[in-house]
Amino acid sequence: MIRVACQQLAPAFGDLETNRRLTVAAIREAGDSGADVVVLPELITSGYVFESPQEAAELAIGRDDQILGDWAAEAARFDLVIAGGFCERGEDGRTYNSAAILDAGGLRAVYRKLHLWDREKRVFARGSAPPPVLDTRVGRLAVIICYDLEFPELTRAVALAGTQLLLVPTNWPLVPRPPGEHPPEAMIGMAAARVNRMAIACADRLGTERGQEWTGGTSIIGVDGWVAAESRQPGMVVAEIDLDAALDKRLTEGADAFGDRRPELYAAVARAEAPAGV
Amino acid sequence: MIRVACQQLAPAFGDLETNRRLTVAAIREAGDSGADVVVLPELITSGYVFESPQEAAELAIGRDDQILGDWAAEAARFDLVIAGGFCERGEDGRTYNSAAILDAGGLRAVYRKLHLWDREKRVFARGSAPPPVLDTRVGRLAVIICYDLEFPELTRAVALAGTQLLLVPTNWPLVPRPPGEHPPEAMIGMAAARVNRMAIACADRLGTERGQEWTGGTSIIGVDGWVAAESRQPGMVVAEIDLDAALDKRLTEGADAFGDRRPELYAAVARAEAPAGV
Repeated sequence: MIRVACQQLAPAFGDLETNRRLTVAAIREAGDSGADVVVLPELITSGYVFESPQEAAELAIGRDDQILGDWAAEAARFDLVIAGGFCERGEDGRTYNSAAILDAGGLRAVYRKLHLWDREKRVFARGSAPPPVLDTRVGRLAVIICYDLEFPELTRAVALAGTQLLLVPTNWPLVPRPPGEHPPEAMIGMAAARVNRMAIACADRLGTERGQEWTGGTSIIGVDGWVAAESRQPGMVVAEIDLDAALDKRLTEGADAFGDRRPELYAAVARAEAPAGV
Repeated sequence: MIRVACQQLAPAFGDLETNRRLTVAAIREAGDSGADVVVLPELITSGYVFESPQEAAELAIGRDDQILGDWAAEAARFDLVIAGGFCERGEDGRTYNSAAILDAGGLRAVYRKLHLWDREKRVFARGSAPPPVLDTRVGRLAVIICYDLEFPELTRAVALAGTQLLLVPTNWPLVPRPPGEHPPEAMIGMAAARVNRMAIACADRLGTERGQEWTGGTSIIGVDGWVAAESRQPGMVVAEIDLDAALDKRLTEGADAFGDRRPELYAAVARAEAPAGV
């Protein structure tokens, strides 16, 4: 069992220094609580609702920024795996919606969001490399960002690559849902977890920013697809998760989530008459 | 809007004649209620819990059997699309876990389950052809069976082929779930519906057969992923479903569930270190 923490935070829009302090404190709180892994929301360094590409570019940071340096120091201090979203200034001068993954060895990888949501397309360049799948002291982890979770080919691919725990910094805009239901993105994550026997930790944000209301949907989902911990309040959410279970894809003695796949036949589903635009 | 009905029935194990009458009555009830489509459970002609391959073979029927003939007659009488599971004796002498799809034109297609669950592997030959995707008077439909739903590549593939409504005859064995949650298979169906903007109608069964307890999880799921109708009682479940919505994959003005896909990058997720057996 490992201890997974998600920090449901609201960044101060445009205030890098406040968000540096906010995230360092959040990481320390997770480390002090004995967490092995902590996930921070998407774009936690900057905020989300940019008025222009220029505004995002001005708030973007390089991989050598003090914020990531501080995250690395905390990762080393607590021997903690950290995944958190940041607004990245690429070496190519473009702005990316990125996530850093760090552990005691420092910055392990930076992932650039593959699926940009709606107006993000006007602000960010989209990533051109698949998500990193990394071996860490707690097991094999991968990181994706928010809307990426809604592409089941991607969650399947990272699971097939051996990912035991998928880390998902998110900013889920609040949308209507029927009473008693999980946020739709969490429901999609639950299904992705269950069909892949892979744990998923989504760190969402709360509150309102420039008129955009957030879901506060932070959810830590076990290998069985059920929510181990969630919260609609600010602050830390923690669950103990069995990552060994993710190594065994058997659903029963005679059924195997991976072994029963028929990939050659999925590719053969008739597309001849697919509607225009697909 | 079309009217979709699912019949949550318990077959009489091994009694083909009783099940013929049961299914004809169920189809008529749906037709009388104004349904455009009716779904019957998996293996509704025979029951499910076979003690041996021989027992299943003895209960298997050909595509020219009176039961399918009766279903075709009802489909014509009500101008109804019908999907229902049956235990099929193939022209190759093998036994298949199959589903028939019929409309006013007669038997449109037979689908043989691709993913056999657990002990089904001892009883049935698995299918070797992808699910049929058919144009009908209500729109483009496809049929899969039960455990097939848990393979997101398959539901994505049928959605990419233009399926607006996926018909799913099922027999969901009862498994534990946390209070307030949907049956896990329904939750997986909800996610598949939402990420693909495709409606899904699952006809489950109720009761106990040879010690196996069933979920009674019949669920009609809209294009938005939410359950439009469900029941834990025997009998018919009906929902009005907007299939036109399935033709538009836009999630917002600037986000598109299909258009935002990055297939070349899913295939590139690193598998080099994948664990043994994957």
